[in-house]
Amino acid sequence: MRFSSLDDIRAFCGDLAHGNERTEAAAVARQRQLTKPPGSLGRLEELAAWLARWQGRDRPRLDRIRIAVFAGNHGVAARGVSAFPSEVTVQMVANFAAGGAAINQLAGFAGADLRVEAIELERPTADFTAAPAMTTGEFLAALDIGARAVTPDCDLVVVGEMGIANTTVAAALCTALLGGGAARWAGRGTGVDDDGLARKCAAIDAGIERHRAILADPLEVAAALGGRELAAIAGAVLAALAARVPVVLDGFVTTAAVLPFARLNPALLDHCRAGHVSAEAGHRLLLEEMALDPLLDLGMRLGEASGAAVAIALLKAALACHNGMATFAEAGVADGG
Amino acid sequence: MRFSSLDDIRAFCGDLAHGNERTEAAAVARQRQLTKPPGSLGRLEELAAWLARWQGRDRPRLDRIRIAVFAGNHGVAARGVSAFPSEVTVQMVANFAAGGAAINQLAGFAGADLRVEAIELERPTADFTAAPAMTTGEFLAALDIGARAVTPDCDLVVVGEMGIANTTVAAALCTALLGGGAARWAGRGTGVDDDGLARKCAAIDAGIERHRAILADPLEVAAALGGRELAAIAGAVLAALAARVPVVLDGFVTTAAVLPFARLNPALLDHCRAGHVSAEAGHRLLLEEMALDPLLDLGMRLGEASGAAVAIALLKAALACHNGMATFAEAGVADGG
Repeated sequence: MRFSSLDDIRAFCGDLAHGNERTEAAAVARQRQLTKPPGSLGRLEELAAWLARWQGRDRPRLDRIRIAVFAGNHGVAARGVSAFPSEVTVQMVANFAAGGAAINQLAGFAGADLRVEAIELERPTADFTAAPAMTTGEFLAALDIGARAVTPDCDLVVVGEMGIANTTVAAALCTALLGGGAARWAGRGTGVDDDGLARKCAAIDAGIERHRAILADPLEVAAALGGRELAAIAGAVLAALAARVPVVLDGFVTTAAVLPFARLNPALLDHCRAGHVSAEAGHRLLLEEMALDPLLDLGMRLGEASGAAVAIALLKAALACHNGMATFAEAGVADGG
Repeated sequence: MRFSSLDDIRAFCGDLAHGNERTEAAAVARQRQLTKPPGSLGRLEELAAWLARWQGRDRPRLDRIRIAVFAGNHGVAARGVSAFPSEVTVQMVANFAAGGAAINQLAGFAGADLRVEAIELERPTADFTAAPAMTTGEFLAALDIGARAVTPDCDLVVVGEMGIANTTVAAALCTALLGGGAARWAGRGTGVDDDGLARKCAAIDAGIERHRAILADPLEVAAALGGRELAAIAGAVLAALAARVPVVLDGFVTTAAVLPFARLNPALLDHCRAGHVSAEAGHRLLLEEMALDPLLDLGMRLGEASGAAVAIALLKAALACHNGMATFAEAGVADGG
């Protein structure tokens, strides 16, 4: 899957791949036979059916899990919107490579294959208050990097990001596409102080003003106000849909990354679940706007796919029950009706 | 730990074991040095510090996890308060032994040792609408069974239950100790219909009326309106406190089981976390009344320790980060100030 123009993307989003209704129905039927009151495993039952639909298997599996983390740098960081300097992006990528970050530990715990793609960290996007963050060509190239991180042999893909100043970018996308002004979407990110938060809001409002002419076009917005790691996340999510691989989304930045595409077609996220709701101010609101019901609510706000990686355990628990439990008939238990 | 009288329990609850403040402080200090913005792992940081406090280790571990499930039968079941007949309790215990239930799969996934104690299933408690459910002797014997399920070598204990009609018992305890009438606490349990729910409320109201003279004494309430598996859960929680072993509580019945003891001394649950909030109607309200903040909210309502068993994964994720991450100094990452 490679897009050569924004129209290519629009065509893709207008004619989406579907999940397998037969395997989903078989999974739902199996759940009704297992030794428990109907529905008593709650969300775990729904997750088993969802995995069955997108994997095309009555009994889904999670043997091959890929966690894809994309890193990028942002011109808008020069406006003092973050508590950390831009150098931290490349330092954290080195920490990922050395195995010292939170996501390394969580990927190990989940038995997942972690891939980190650092995208032109030495060449930040343009400051969106002055120019489009990316040209169309740069945007498409970043989408392609994301798409190539997904292979059809994956049972699940988990996406996340690292990039100093990218909660500013995410809030700008939300402000552009959902409205309400910067203050509705800008949060503390890695822990910016009041002055920093004011600079963040000012940068977002300036970016919106600068790009007012293209705000009605979600893909133009994604290029002008977005970032390379956000585009790569979207590319991975689109490629996963094409390959019918289920996806778990991470936090605020990751969710904002797919927002422009969901605006083109909300069904584009049927193969996705929100791994968690983060403590970053705008995330809960964004999930509500996108009708995504998060699996976890643990006050996390780290990015790196960390919240989504924790949520993998819930999917594994769901499948342990779905695939391993006895039926009423097998166990000789009265089924209550 | 063995109680020979209710006064013994009262004395225990008046002079509680404390966690280790030094190891907790060391864990909090370590979290501040790890390569992430301070506090960005949210609840996972709090869980690591809590485990450090109760295990007395700067770097806690979860190598030996015990899941203790207690099963009991209830005289009040004869009043048609459940969608399932009482025979299902013993059938499900057989299913646990055969490895076919949800908790078997979840214990396997968590790498936990599952112990199921069926307590005199052939001899249900008395129908509490007509008599005290248990004598003091029966109550103390059930507490002791629970206490013996905890050994000091456990890194964590997870408690849960199985017992047809025991959401009626749990709701009766809540009504007796927290007020508001049966309708505030009675839910659908395993899936009772409207008529069944009305019978459930009527039974609870009758039980409260029958035992009005002892409602001011939480331990008398636990014996008169409780059940053997609930008393055993409380015994396990008290023994875990004495041995300084942290505990994860399961759903509505499990939380109601420790309510009488928390009424004697709220600090009695400092070594406990609520694994989840269940879909059973009264659980969210009960957690609020007890100031317990659940780790998961997945719409589960199965019992068997199933929700708490899923939550073990969050504790493991917390420790993977706490014990495995690099510090800022080790990784050469700027710490933002």
